[in-house]
Amino acid sequence: MEQNIILTVDVVLLTLKDNALQVVLQKRTWDPYKGFPALPGGYVHTEEDLDSLAAAKRVLKDKTALVSPYLEQLYTFASATRDPRGWSVSISYYALLDIETLMSQGSDRFLLHPVDDLPQLPFDHNRIIDSAVQRLRNKSTYSAVPCYLLPELFTLSDLQQTYEKVLGCKLDKSAFRRKIGELDFLDATSKARTGVHRPAQLYRIRPAKNLVLFDRTISKI
Amino acid sequence: MEQNIILTVDVVLLTLKDNALQVVLQKRTWDPYKGFPALPGGYVHTEEDLDSLAAAKRVLKDKTALVSPYLEQLYTFASATRDPRGWSVSISYYALLDIETLMSQGSDRFLLHPVDDLPQLPFDHNRIIDSAVQRLRNKSTYSAVPCYLLPELFTLSDLQQTYEKVLGCKLDKSAFRRKIGELDFLDATSKARTGVHRPAQLYRIRPAKNLVLFDRTISKI
Repeated sequence: MEQNIILTVDVVLLTLKDNALQVVLQKRTWDPYKGFPALPGGYVHTEEDLDSLAAAKRVLKDKTALVSPYLEQLYTFASATRDPRGWSVSISYYALLDIETLMSQGSDRFLLHPVDDLPQLPFDHNRIIDSAVQRLRNKSTYSAVPCYLLPELFTLSDLQQTYEKVLGCKLDKSAFRRKIGELDFLDATSKARTGVHRPAQLYRIRPAKNLVLFDRTISKI
Repeated sequence: MEQNIILTVDVVLLTLKDNALQVVLQKRTWDPYKGFPALPGGYVHTEEDLDSLAAAKRVLKDKTALVSPYLEQLYTFASATRDPRGWSVSISYYALLDIETLMSQGSDRFLLHPVDDLPQLPFDHNRIIDSAVQRLRNKSTYSAVPCYLLPELFTLSDLQQTYEKVLGCKLDKSAFRRKIGELDFLDATSKARTGVHRPAQLYRIRPAKNLVLFDRTISKI
């Protein structure tokens, strides 16, 4: 059966910089929309990619030199009209990376742009980014996912500030720490950050605890 | 660019029957796996389908004669190995329908099978169904989605029983009613169900309230 489909993957890589969620964009090197900033993306290579996740990892690495510890399928945008070349499928992924690792890996290959102030982007990339931000903010209310916006080692203050920046609201310190303690997804390390304040314990996320779900309501009634 | 991709949509239509979540399956009428029960699915028709949601609606209606009031994109399963014909993409949707409507619309065209006791199905259809059930159970902890397993008019007792069957646990009646009241997604009708007990008020879901989110935890700290 002849379908004439364009199958691509696009990656929304988010980071925290200057207190704002920012997205990695890249100037397109070919038409359509040559020269415009857009999400890193590319064709699925059926000879090379075992599945769509492998394709997303390959495209992100080839295009930006970035490797993210968190890469999750977001949504599939598939229609006759989203791409001027024809009926097109974008299996979209979102990824998270701390700003220091991101800048050290390949900062000459991409631009960073705050997600709350984006220009008009090619295809439906504005919509894809909006979906990723909504998914991240939503997951931040019940999971450890925001940890991936931090470097490997972080203090509890760093963690609270990260949740606050993602959620866009202040959280009560003692309630936050009690909740994080209950959720039990951190390992205390033997290290501490020293400075003008008293030393602050450094933590890391416990492997395999990355998607621990927080309590929800109806199931607890 | 020649990609040689098979692009399909598959629909996991769930209903409640005999106190259990059941899924609509259909005997395949062609190879591969001819004669085996599988999810209703089919190729995207690029000449006809404007987008993948339209394709899912068309395939569900053409194959089963069913129209669901709730159809949501679930996940995209895309790999070199999931289909013996080649590199294949299934954009999967899940749908909900009450058992009475379902049986009246086209019961000679499909089979119903409890989701907790499935045989080995073709392709990765067991995995697709597992994902749909997990999504439904998860969403049932914070949304009005289970309402779509009920007919248009229902009592609060019907509603509680539906949540209980989906979640697989008993809920406290007064806490459940308080939560449903707070969430404010129901319209009381002027009708009541009469019988051996005192008349019970009938409700319907308020349009556009179908995805109201319940309180979560971290954002409320």
